[in-house]
Amino acid sequence: MNVFDAVDPGEDFAAYLPLPAKLDPHLEEALRHVLDNPGNLVRPRIVLQTAVAYGVEIARAKDLAIALEYFHTASLLFDDLPCMDDALERRGSPCVHIAYGEAGAILSALALINRAYALSWRAVSGCPQSRQTEALNYLEERLGVGGLLDGQSLDLHYATLPHDRETNRRIAFGKTVSLIRLALVLPAIVGGAPGRELQLLERIATYWGLSYQIADDLKDVLQGSAETGKTGARDILLDRPNYALAAGIPAAAERLRRLINLGDRTLTRLLISRPAVAFLYKLRGNLEEEVTRLTEAACEMAMTA
Amino acid sequence: MNVFDAVDPGEDFAAYLPLPAKLDPHLEEALRHVLDNPGNLVRPRIVLQTAVAYGVEIARAKDLAIALEYFHTASLLFDDLPCMDDALERRGSPCVHIAYGEAGAILSALALINRAYALSWRAVSGCPQSRQTEALNYLEERLGVGGLLDGQSLDLHYATLPHDRETNRRIAFGKTVSLIRLALVLPAIVGGAPGRELQLLERIATYWGLSYQIADDLKDVLQGSAETGKTGARDILLDRPNYALAAGIPAAAERLRRLINLGDRTLTRLLISRPAVAFLYKLRGNLEEEVTRLTEAACEMAMTA
Repeated sequence: MNVFDAVDPGEDFAAYLPLPAKLDPHLEEALRHVLDNPGNLVRPRIVLQTAVAYGVEIARAKDLAIALEYFHTASLLFDDLPCMDDALERRGSPCVHIAYGEAGAILSALALINRAYALSWRAVSGCPQSRQTEALNYLEERLGVGGLLDGQSLDLHYATLPHDRETNRRIAFGKTVSLIRLALVLPAIVGGAPGRELQLLERIATYWGLSYQIADDLKDVLQGSAETGKTGARDILLDRPNYALAAGIPAAAERLRRLINLGDRTLTRLLISRPAVAFLYKLRGNLEEEVTRLTEAACEMAMTA
Repeated sequence: MNVFDAVDPGEDFAAYLPLPAKLDPHLEEALRHVLDNPGNLVRPRIVLQTAVAYGVEIARAKDLAIALEYFHTASLLFDDLPCMDDALERRGSPCVHIAYGEAGAILSALALINRAYALSWRAVSGCPQSRQTEALNYLEERLGVGGLLDGQSLDLHYATLPHDRETNRRIAFGKTVSLIRLALVLPAIVGGAPGRELQLLERIATYWGLSYQIADDLKDVLQGSAETGKTGARDILLDRPNYALAAGIPAAAERLRRLINLGDRTLTRLLISRPAVAFLYKLRGNLEEEVTRLTEAACEMAMTA
């Protein structure tokens, strides 16, 4: 039996933030809704398997996997707020701030964040001191003013910024690549991966992060809310960076394929020294499927236009 | 020379969150404003001196002091949002969300929180493993769903809850006492204080936390925004718990004096085993002065009514 058969990230997602017997019923309702409706959980599966591939024991790998999923979920709760993306739906349901109020969404996000830092600490607490420091500094940098927060702020104020390559790149790096780097690189740091493998993982995270960003941009242009489960075609309305809008759908699809190829080549090099991360090929397969689907949708659109 | 003469919490408050060379100018402006306008910094001074009284080296004591002040400041930024207290002014200036937008306030608060967890971790990282766990669990509990977040949510939904002693107590414990407990007890945990002293510090924190809450309630009733620097007399408008409104000003002033006396007695007991925390008497003196001022204001109000 594979070690991962015994692990259910959906169950852990709900269970790793135990709610106290006495909790304000409004906050409890909002938080319960968030915990009972996880996303596809592909992220915690990556974290878990990467951590185990680098020799992290399963309990700590799970702590890290759920921590990063909580950070990600909290970032979505904030993103959807009226003062940010002003979204109505997420994962096919009304956004948390729509169903439980803005304060409910914010306090739920803060509960996830508080727990996520605690789980991150627990995940690294058995490591040698220098590795703890490296891991926690990496976490702080990706989430903080040099990472996610900068990307989010740039994204929100895109209308006032030059719509150039440099701005778009900083937004994609801050908003998307930061969280993929955490999913791929942080578990390897915790497992004591050698520097060269960390560099390869950084590059894979960058190629994949940019790929996901372009795939998201294509989806935003091609699909409505029915298919993506979130409010669709918003980038043009909100004046947000969108590569498919800026360069056109064919060029975006082409760039996506190129990034996936670069990721493939880097992954092949990593596999030579670390065969245990072969599961990453499966992920890359999902990306490939998505690209095919998106490309088909793009062709259909071109034909009906 | 006293060790504290060399320490300027105002300078540290600005310096402990270094901003990267490239940061979205909107976020930079908001965050710079927050960092350059600290409060009275009485909290980091308490943390610093308590930590040093328990043998924590000065660099770690400073990390902890600034971390707790960042958490506190972030909680104020969230509190002031339109979906929470909808405040206009704080510390005599327009609230951050008024001057820099709601997203600017939220992202600034998240930047402070991210840095505060990193500093907290750095503060405990030299301790024995069991003490690290104790300290970080304590931090998580006070800030999380069993502490600050519960208190904040109850406070926001007070209009829908029974206006009874139990509700008021949970709000005061969650919102106010949680952060005072962190300021007094956490540095002692980091310094390895014996259990009995931690218990006494817990009790002092509770008496003082409740005292500050009543003092705040009295201020809200007695004063306008000119004197407190925040939007005044809001509790009655927002239907928030206020002991002075519920029990009347004389009963509130009486209860405040009683809590201060209980705090005094507990502090006297603590000083027998730990004379180094004698500086806490000075704080208690400030509280006494404030009480006198508030009582005079209450008398004046009664005469002009």
